[in-house]
Amino acid sequence: MSSMRAHVYRVAAAGPDDVSGVEALFAAGLRPESVVAILGKTEGNGCVNDFTRGFASRSFEALFARHDVTGVCLVMSGGTEGALSPHWTVFSREKSEAPAGRALAIGTARTPVLPFHHLGRRQQILMVANGVKAAMRDAGIDDPRDVHFVQIKCPLLTLARVGVAENEGEAVATRDTLKSMGLSRGASALGAAVALGEADPGSIADADICTRYAIFSRRASTSGGVELLDHEIVVLGMGNGWSGPFAIDHAVMENAIDTSSVLKARDRLPASARLTAVLAKAEPDPSGKVGGLRHTMLDDSDISGTRHARAFVGGVLAGVFGMTDLYVSGGAEHQGPSGGGPVAIIVEKES
Amino acid sequence: MSSMRAHVYRVAAAGPDDVSGVEALFAAGLRPESVVAILGKTEGNGCVNDFTRGFASRSFEALFARHDVTGVCLVMSGGTEGALSPHWTVFSREKSEAPAGRALAIGTARTPVLPFHHLGRRQQILMVANGVKAAMRDAGIDDPRDVHFVQIKCPLLTLARVGVAENEGEAVATRDTLKSMGLSRGASALGAAVALGEADPGSIADADICTRYAIFSRRASTSGGVELLDHEIVVLGMGNGWSGPFAIDHAVMENAIDTSSVLKARDRLPASARLTAVLAKAEPDPSGKVGGLRHTMLDDSDISGTRHARAFVGGVLAGVFGMTDLYVSGGAEHQGPSGGGPVAIIVEKES
Amino acid sequence: MSSMRAHVYRVAAAGPDDVSGVEALFAAGLRPESVVAILGKTEGNGCVNDFTRGFASRSFEALFARHDVTGVCLVMSGGTEGALSPHWTVFSREKSEAPAGRALAIGTARTPVLPFHHLGRRQQILMVANGVKAAMRDAGIDDPRDVHFVQIKCPLLTLARVGVAENEGEAVATRDTLKSMGLSRGASALGAAVALGEADPGSIADADICTRYAIFSRRASTSGGVELLDHEIVVLGMGNGWSGPFAIDHAVMENAIDTSSVLKARDRLPASARLTAVLAKAEPDPSGKVGGLRHTMLDDSDISGTRHARAFVGGVLAGVFGMTDLYVSGGAEHQGPSGGGPVAIIVEKES
Amino acid sequence: MSSMRAHVYRVAAAGPDDVSGVEALFAAGLRPESVVAILGKTEGNGCVNDFTRGFASRSFEALFARHDVTGVCLVMSGGTEGALSPHWTVFSREKSEAPAGRALAIGTARTPVLPFHHLGRRQQILMVANGVKAAMRDAGIDDPRDVHFVQIKCPLLTLARVGVAENEGEAVATRDTLKSMGLSRGASALGAAVALGEADPGSIADADICTRYAIFSRRASTSGGVELLDHEIVVLGMGNGWSGPFAIDHAVMENAIDTSSVLKARDRLPASARLTAVLAKAEPDPSGKVGGLRHTMLDDSDISGTRHARAFVGGVLAGVFGMTDLYVSGGAEHQGPSGGGPVAIIVEKES
Repeated sequence: MSSMRAHVYRVAAAGPDDVSGVEALFAAGLRPESVVAILGKTEGNGCVNDFTRGFASRSFEALFARHDVTGVCLVMSGGTEGALSPHWTVFSREKSEAPAGRALAIGTARTPVLPFHHLGRRQQILMVANGVKAAMRDAGIDDPRDVHFVQIKCPLLTLARVGVAENEGEAVATRDTLKSMGLSRGASALGAAVALGEADPGSIADADICTRYAIFSRRASTSGGVELLDHEIVVLGMGNGWSGPFAIDHAVMENAIDTSSVLKARDRLPASARLTAVLAKAEPDPSGKVGGLRHTMLDDSDISGTRHARAFVGGVLAGVFGMTDLYVSGGAEHQGPSGGGPVAIIVEKES
Repeated sequence: MSSMRAHVYRVAAAGPDDVSGVEALFAAGLRPESVVAILGKTEGNGCVNDFTRGFASRSFEALFARHDVTGVCLVMSGGTEGALSPHWTVFSREKSEAPAGRALAIGTARTPVLPFHHLGRRQQILMVANGVKAAMRDAGIDDPRDVHFVQIKCPLLTLARVGVAENEGEAVATRDTLKSMGLSRGASALGAAVALGEADPGSIADADICTRYAIFSRRASTSGGVELLDHEIVVLGMGNGWSGPFAIDHAVMENAIDTSSVLKARDRLPASARLTAVLAKAEPDPSGKVGGLRHTMLDDSDISGTRHARAFVGGVLAGVFGMTDLYVSGGAEHQGPSGGGPVAIIVEKES
Repeated sequence: MSSMRAHVYRVAAAGPDDVSGVEALFAAGLRPESVVAILGKTEGNGCVNDFTRGFASRSFEALFARHDVTGVCLVMSGGTEGALSPHWTVFSREKSEAPAGRALAIGTARTPVLPFHHLGRRQQILMVANGVKAAMRDAGIDDPRDVHFVQIKCPLLTLARVGVAENEGEAVATRDTLKSMGLSRGASALGAAVALGEADPGSIADADICTRYAIFSRRASTSGGVELLDHEIVVLGMGNGWSGPFAIDHAVMENAIDTSSVLKARDRLPASARLTAVLAKAEPDPSGKVGGLRHTMLDDSDISGTRHARAFVGGVLAGVFGMTDLYVSGGAEHQGPSGGGPVAIIVEKES
Repeated sequence: MSSMRAHVYRVAAAGPDDVSGVEALFAAGLRPESVVAILGKTEGNGCVNDFTRGFASRSFEALFARHDVTGVCLVMSGGTEGALSPHWTVFSREKSEAPAGRALAIGTARTPVLPFHHLGRRQQILMVANGVKAAMRDAGIDDPRDVHFVQIKCPLLTLARVGVAENEGEAVATRDTLKSMGLSRGASALGAAVALGEADPGSIADADICTRYAIFSRRASTSGGVELLDHEIVVLGMGNGWSGPFAIDHAVMENAIDTSSVLKARDRLPASARLTAVLAKAEPDPSGKVGGLRHTMLDDSDISGTRHARAFVGGVLAGVFGMTDLYVSGGAEHQGPSGGGPVAIIVEKES
C-alpha cells in the first residue's frame, strides 16, 4: 500500500531574487511539479513599501515557468531584522511506495473569489473555514488536533477594488487599504480557528474582527497579498496516510519572551531529530508591556513595531533553536494570544 | 570588623527624564551620597543624534544637585529596541558593620584628562589600564580574575577638539567624530584588557585598535560621551572585604546566539538567588554571518546595525532570563570576540 | 498715547538644549519677562518618540526659571529634515511710548485641561475656539481678518493616558498614539477655524475630524506635545494698538509645490523689509498625488510621511526665501487645504 | 541631407516593476530598438539595500527581451523622497529626413572592462575620459561646451572582485564595498571633467579622488552598479547634425538652495518651450552647513543623509519647475561643487 511523502527544504537566499538554491534542488533531483508551496523570508521592511516580496515572487514565477509549472503557493514575508537570515522553505509532496504511517502531511486548497465587501467580515471567516477544511481533506487529516500550522494567503483591498464594490452598491469594511490587510489577516485567522474548532462561528460578529483578540487560532499564520482575489491555504499536520522522516508540532507563545511553551513543544518531538524549520508569528504586544514592563515598539516613529517584534522574537527563538534562518512573520491578528503567537516546529527524524 | 556593602537597584523609567523611581528610592531610605553610578537604558536610537542620553543625564544631574551630590558616574546607553525596557540600574555602596566576606564589590576611578591626540592610540590604552587598576584598588580587588565587569565612559573627538589638537601641532587619530567614538571605545576596552591581564600592552600597536579584533577584553563595556575629557571607570567584581547579598559572574557570548555560555555563567551563581541585573554588549557580526548564515544588519540603510543587534541579542537574553529590563548596549569594539560580547549577571542571594 | 510693541528674534540652536543664543539676547538687553513665546525647530523626528522637544522645553524652563520668569509659551516642533536648520523664534512684547499704529500684534491664551476622551472630538474644537478668541482679545485684535497665524500646542494620547480614560469608563477617539496626534492637531485647527469664522461649529461632527478636509483654517498651525494636558495658543496678526517695525502677512499653499501663493504674499509686504521669520505647515498630500503625480510619502514604512513633507516643503520654501532656518512644521490636518498649508511671513521694515 | 533626431519621454511608474508606460509608448509607435537609455527614479531608499533598482532593471530587461532588443543603458536611481514622483525618462534616437540643425544630441559609449585594482584610481579617470570622448563623437559633438550632461554608470567592488584582484597580486583602492561605490562615482566624474576640459589629468593624484572636492565636473552624473564591469556612458548636449524640437542646457547649483543658477539656465532656454526633463544631483553639504546655517543631515542615524538631500533639493527644484517627476539623484562626489550639484534641463520647443 502506497503513501504520500512530504519533504521540506530550507534554502539560503543571497537576495530577494536569488532562486539559485532552489534551482540546485531541481538539479539534484527535486521534481519542480512536486513543489506545493514556498514560504520565503526576504530582506525588505515587511511593511507597505516592501518590494522584496514581489521581486522574490516574480523570480520564482519565472523559475517555475521555465519548468512549465504553475500554481505553486508563494508566501513571501518581508523582514529579516536582527540576525534573521533570508531563506526559502520549500514544501513538496509526492506519492511513495513506502507504507503509510504517521508523518508530516501537507494539504492545500484555494477558496472561491472573495467578494470585496465580504473582506474583513463574517463571510470571509466562513469562506476560509471551508477552505481550511478542504485543505485538511487534501492532507488526509480528519482530526483538527492533528493540524499544527495553517498558512493562509489572503486578499486585500485596493482603491480600485473599493471602487468596484461601491459601484455595485456594496459597502466595504474599510476604505483604508492598509487596514484592509489587517482585517483580511484577522478574518482569515478566525476562519482557521472555526475550522479547527478553536472558535464558535456563531459567536463571532463582524465587529469582533481585529478588536476582540481573546478569540484566536493557535495554529494560523496569515499573510495578505495584492496579487490574489481568493485565498491560498496550506495545512501542515501529522497525517496517517503519509510516510517519510518529517514530523511537526507547535507551541503558542503567550508573550514575546515565553520560551517555556516553545521548549515544551520542541521536547515533544524526538530528541534525536534534526530541526528542519521553525515557522512563527510575532507582534508588538498591544498592551505596551511585555512581562509587566514597558516596551517602546509602538511609540517608535523611526522603526515600525512589526520590525522591532520580528527582531526581538527572532532573537528569542534563535536563542532557543540555535539557528537564524527562522520564518518569523509579523501581523499576528487573531493568530495566537495578543502579544504572543503560534510557533510550528518541523523536524526530520533519523532514518 | 566592618565591611563595605554594595547595593544594586533596577528601576523602571517612563521616559528619558523620568527619575521618579530613583527619587522614590531616596524617599525610601537610599542615601543619595552612597550612589556610585547609574547605568541607564534610554529609548533613543543609540547613535549620533540620540538626545535621550543627554536628557537623562541632565535630569539625574538636576536630581543629585537637589541633594547636594555631585560626581555620580552616569552612563546612559541609548536604544531599547524590540521589547527591551527603559530602566536605570543604580549602584551604591556604604560602610557596614556586617563582617567582611565575599560579595559584590564596586570600585571607581577617573583618569587624568586625555590629550586629544592620544585618543584611539596606545596612550589611551595605557591611561585606561592604570585607571582600571585604580578602580580595582578602590574596590579592594587584587586578583583580576575577581573582576567581572568594567564599565568605562570615555571621551570622543568633536570638530572643536580636533581644532585644539591641531592648533597645538598634534595630529589626531581621526578627524571623523563618529569614528572617534569607536576608536575611544576600542582603546578603552583594550586598556581594560591590559589591566586584567587579557592582553599584553607591548604587543598592541596603534594600528591594531579597531582592526585586530582577536585582542579583546572579556569583561569590558565601554561607552563614549561628549561631556567628559577623562575616563570614568566602574569596576564590578567579587571582593573579600565586602558584605551583603549581591554576587556577580560573567559570560562571554561567542556570537549573537550563544546562549550556552550565558546559561553556564548563570548556573555558576546560586540557584536560589534572585536576578538583579544583566549587563551585556552586542554588535552586528562584522563577518556578515551568524552561525554560518548571512545576516542583513550591516546592509540595512534604513536601520542602524547597532539597533538590529540590540533588538536581537536583547531577545536572545530576554528568552534566557525571562525579563526585558536588560542593559544591552551596542558598540562592542574589543569587548568580547568579534560578533559576540560580554554578559555580566548580578544576583541577590536569599538572606 | 502709548502702545504695545512686539519683537521677533531668530536664533540658531546648536542642539535641542542650546539656549545660549537666547541667553545672549538677554545679556544684550532683551528682558526675559517680555518674552511671550518661543517657537522652536528641534532636530528630532517630530513624531511620537521625539524627546528633543521635551529636552528643549526643559532647557528653556530652566533658563527662564533662572530669571524668575514662568508661563512663556514654548512650542517645540521636531523635525529639521533636509537642510532645515534648528533654531528658535523668540516673540516678545512690551509697552512702548511710541504712538499706536498698525503693527505686528501678539496675544496668548491657555485653555482648561482637556479630558483624554475629548481629544479629537467636538469638545476639543469648542475648547480651542474659546481659547483662540481669548488670545485675540489678549492681542487686542477684534477683526478675525487681522489674524495671520494661530499657533496652537495641543496634547496627545499615550498608552498610559488611554489607560486612565478607560479606567474611568471613557472611550478615547483612538488607541493609536500616533493617530491621536493627528486628531488633536486636526481638532485644534478646526477650533481656530471656528474662532476665525472660517467654519461653522454646528456643521462639524466628530466623524469629520481628520476626514473632511474641505473644512480647514487658513491660518492655524497646530502641534502636539506630550508634555501638556491643555492647549497653549499664540495669535499673531496686525493690531491697531501696536507699534514697531514688524509686520505679518500669510499665504495658503494649495499644494506642496505652490510657490505662487507664497510669492504673492511676500510681495504684499514692503519690498525693502527684511525677512524675519517664515512659519509654515506641511503635510503629505492625502490624495497620494501632488500636481497630478503620485508621491510615495504615505507608502513609506521607513520614514514617516511628515518627515518627507517637512524636508520637501522645506526645500520649496528655502528655494523661495533663500534661507533654511524656517519654521516648517508637519501634521497639517485641517490647516490649509488638503496637501497644502498656511505660510506666515514676518518682516521687519526699515526704520 | 538627413539628420539624427532625439526624443525624450517622461513616463510615470506605478511601482518599480511598472513598465506599462513604456510598453504603451511602443504600442503608440516608439520603436524599441531606437531606445538608447532609460533613467529611472524608483521608490527605494537609494542606498545599499535598495532592491527597487534591480527589480526595475530586471523588468525592463524582460520587456526589451520580448522585443529582441538588448544593450539599452538602464540607470536606476533609488529614492523618491518628499513629493518626488517615481518615473522613467526614456531617451531614443533615430535617423530623420529632416535637415540637420542645432538640437538635442545623444551619444553613448562603453569603456573596456575596468581592472578591479584600477577602480577609484587615476586609471579609471583616464578610461572614463576616453569613454566620454567616444560618446561625444557618437553624438557628433566636437566642442565640450556643447555637452550639458554626462550620465555614467560605473562598476563597484564586491568581496569576490576584491578577491580576484588580490589573487592576481594587485591591491585594490579599498576593500570596503560601500566605499568603492563612492570612489567609482568620484573617479568617473573626474573622468568626465577631464574629457570636458574642466580638469587637468596631470594634476589629479589617486589621493585626490573623493577628498579634493575643489576639482569637479559641472556636467557629470555618475551612478554605481553591481551588474557591470565596464562603464556605460550617455552624453547629452546640443549637436549640429541633429533635428527635432528638443534642447538642453544646464546649471550648477552652488549649494542646496541656489535657485538663481537654476533660474538663469532655465531662462536661457526658449520661454515658450515645454519642460521635458530635469536631471540633477544632490548631496548633504559635507561642511555641515547650507548658507552659513547648520543642517542635521549628516548627524541623523535614522535617515541617510542622501535621502534628506534628495527630498530637500527635490523640493527646491520642484518649487522652481512646478513639477515633481524630476530625476534627482544622490551621491554627488566631484559632480558639481561640494554641497551643490549639476542640473540639466531638457525642453521641447513649440513646433
